[in-house]
Amino acid sequence: MQPPCETVRIGRAVRVPVHCEAARQRLKPVGKLITELLMSAPLRLGIAGLGTVGTGVIRLIQTEAALIAARAGRAVEVTGVSARDRKKARDVDLSPYAWEDDPVTLARRDDVDVFVELMGGDAGPAKAATEAAIAAGKDVVTANKALLAHHGQALALAAEAGGRSIRFEAAVAGGIPVIKVLTEGLAANRIRRVMGVMNGTCNYILTRMESAGLPYDAVFEEARKLGYLEADPNLDVGGIDAGHKLSLLAAIAFGTKVSFDAVELEGIGRIAIEDIRSAADMGYRIKLLGVAQMTGRGLEQRMSPCLVPSDSPLGQLQGGTNMVVIEGEAVGQIVLRGAGAGEGPTASAVMGDVIDLARGIRIPVFGQPAALLSDAVAATVAAPAPFYLRMRLQDKPGALAKVATVLGEAGVSIDRMRQRAHDEGSAPVLIVTHRCTRDALDHALSRMPETGVVVGDPVAIRIEAV
Amino acid sequence: MQPPCETVRIGRAVRVPVHCEAARQRLKPVGKLITELLMSAPLRLGIAGLGTVGTGVIRLIQTEAALIAARAGRAVEVTGVSARDRKKARDVDLSPYAWEDDPVTLARRDDVDVFVELMGGDAGPAKAATEAAIAAGKDVVTANKALLAHHGQALALAAEAGGRSIRFEAAVAGGIPVIKVLTEGLAANRIRRVMGVMNGTCNYILTRMESAGLPYDAVFEEARKLGYLEADPNLDVGGIDAGHKLSLLAAIAFGTKVSFDAVELEGIGRIAIEDIRSAADMGYRIKLLGVAQMTGRGLEQRMSPCLVPSDSPLGQLQGGTNMVVIEGEAVGQIVLRGAGAGEGPTASAVMGDVIDLARGIRIPVFGQPAALLSDAVAATVAAPAPFYLRMRLQDKPGALAKVATVLGEAGVSIDRMRQRAHDEGSAPVLIVTHRCTRDALDHALSRMPETGVVVGDPVAIRIEAV
Repeated sequence: MQPPCETVRIGRAVRVPVHCEAARQRLKPVGKLITELLMSAPLRLGIAGLGTVGTGVIRLIQTEAALIAARAGRAVEVTGVSARDRKKARDVDLSPYAWEDDPVTLARRDDVDVFVELMGGDAGPAKAATEAAIAAGKDVVTANKALLAHHGQALALAAEAGGRSIRFEAAVAGGIPVIKVLTEGLAANRIRRVMGVMNGTCNYILTRMESAGLPYDAVFEEARKLGYLEADPNLDVGGIDAGHKLSLLAAIAFGTKVSFDAVELEGIGRIAIEDIRSAADMGYRIKLLGVAQMTGRGLEQRMSPCLVPSDSPLGQLQGGTNMVVIEGEAVGQIVLRGAGAGEGPTASAVMGDVIDLARGIRIPVFGQPAALLSDAVAATVAAPAPFYLRMRLQDKPGALAKVATVLGEAGVSIDRMRQRAHDEGSAPVLIVTHRCTRDALDHALSRMPETGVVVGDPVAIRIEAV
Repeated sequence: MQPPCETVRIGRAVRVPVHCEAARQRLKPVGKLITELLMSAPLRLGIAGLGTVGTGVIRLIQTEAALIAARAGRAVEVTGVSARDRKKARDVDLSPYAWEDDPVTLARRDDVDVFVELMGGDAGPAKAATEAAIAAGKDVVTANKALLAHHGQALALAAEAGGRSIRFEAAVAGGIPVIKVLTEGLAANRIRRVMGVMNGTCNYILTRMESAGLPYDAVFEEARKLGYLEADPNLDVGGIDAGHKLSLLAAIAFGTKVSFDAVELEGIGRIAIEDIRSAADMGYRIKLLGVAQMTGRGLEQRMSPCLVPSDSPLGQLQGGTNMVVIEGEAVGQIVLRGAGAGEGPTASAVMGDVIDLARGIRIPVFGQPAALLSDAVAATVAAPAPFYLRMRLQDKPGALAKVATVLGEAGVSIDRMRQRAHDEGSAPVLIVTHRCTRDALDHALSRMPETGVVVGDPVAIRIEAV
């Protein structure tokens, strides 16, 4: 009993009214046939960047071709590759693939359906080649968090204008399919908060400081020797790399344009071994924790050292492992844990995206069309939280009372306090405050010199409820 | 520079050679147009079953219509509903929707695109209505693990023959998007092992036994009073419900037909409080753990109480929370944790599937076409493992030596042993063995009476490496 409706000529791309049920029904089988035709040919990749991840992707494709084809429903082939140095020794066979010195040329090749960008960097060849691929009507799969954190909105607009997609599972939390979980699996949830430990190097350093009792500088040197640090270590220990990742998660979670510049960044360089020990004494661990949440005051994005309970999933995370915690209105709390880097995990994420494209899964880059993402209004003040304070007080009667008075006058009340053994005329004091704003706390700390009993600068670290 | 190729007439569904690049290029925009036409109309749901989950789904759609439409790229509407009792009080407004007494009629309605089956049960109306929906060319979203564990292969074949899909994220581990992660996110991975704590009621009982020091029967009664148990409690405590879920994960992980009958099932009813305490003393917790792995001897599927290290993610799982651990060749270990049941988490999973369909994401039910899934050859012998043994020995000289001898003669060697305080002429002994087969262990245990020193029946529980 379909209502009558105008004959539809599909061959000339004539639009029909979508409310016409008869047209919908008639289009269904034709659409299905065309999809089948398009989808039965191999999906052809052009891979730019042949470092650990690039060679890992090629190795995975060569090793698991049959498994990948079975799951993707069609073969996935590499047709061309590109890297800076053609002569560099790589332990995968590149002879079956066309070589392009210029990734832009690779991105434009007619025999490339998907451009896989594994070069890295927020500008230069990675950006040029990604733009070229999109302009040439290719889908893009990338592991490049920096590129997307800085240019994600423009790139997504361009890709979506051409009906193409940019997928970036490998850019955030390595092998953990967090982009897919957030964008698709939890798509029915109003997201309250996204948190994550997403830089394995920082977590390694903090974990190692605790387990070996070594100061930051010593463990930093260890990490450098082990090759765990980026060429510019500040990308890791300054929180920039993890901040890039957080800004991408926030865009998806809250339907806002990527706004990396609004991420409040603080690295781990100022974390003293004494704070790690003291936090442990109070039942906490220090993590470089990313937090994104939509508040009444706007979008809050922080990447900074925080205390989390030692017995929470985040607190128990050791070494280079990553963890992302997503809190949704309907689903409650979902915790995802896995390797945050390395050849296999990153190749797994890249190929998960590729198989999605091979299967015809193509959704907007950030879950909603980039043109509809809202401008993120950055929260200028972070939500109140309890804080950990460590300070050293002169061994004088009433010293503690003076500190408590200054805190109280600024509206900061004390939840727990611990005074440790005296030492050279002064005593270390640990304080856990009740929830207060950072502003109130900073105001109180600025007045501490007035007490005349505080030795040196107090240390304050946020305690995140997880 | 396209090669020449025959003109393609799309309006009459003429197949063109897929190797013809010119045809592919010409088809692309037409396919895109048809997809756009089909995809801009609202997606219309028929929901059968209005218990906690059904009303939860309706509430979520009503509360978050705008958010869901923004992410799905089109509106998601309920057009009709069905349940056993129309008059039952439900705290959602059903007046906008057509009512059908018979879910089969609902499944066949012209104004239903997706049939959402939330009735439960592996036969009866759930099966009939799902079959009717597929026959009528609808996609199906279901939370029904029993139906799929028993009839998943036949239903998937039918759905895929008609170009339709059955999605069942809500059937496994509640709000955790594990089906999506396994089927899509980790699709490039040869899966080594999937493990999970997937029955919140059992985990609640075991956790509560430990925390309150109460025996199984008492906590079982508590759980019954709290409404945590299914009408047939054996579905929970007998491991059947969790076994259903495991069999679905195994099918996806290993590309085999669902084979629930091959799941080795053991419930938690025989777990004594003494074992929970003794396990804790040795650094373990007891969990109803599902394990699926492909071995040289075939597919191993077990759902049984196991010891896991107390400080592992699985060991730390408390109460009704679920956890799934996936081990892939490339990605390593991925851990997913979240609420395993409840209105919000289950509705989140159902609507995640619905939004996928609204976005045009449609992949084979078990990740590969059902027609290509292989017959699972069930492993008749589980992989070797260490075991926990608890037995009571008469307080006689040489008693322990006799037990060790019997174990040793069966090829079971002892890793750790602990003898506790004597008690009425006999002493409890705890043993952790090195890796051995269950057969070897059972053989040794069958010979224990010969020693003349073992009082009562020894208890043996597998220790799973996690």
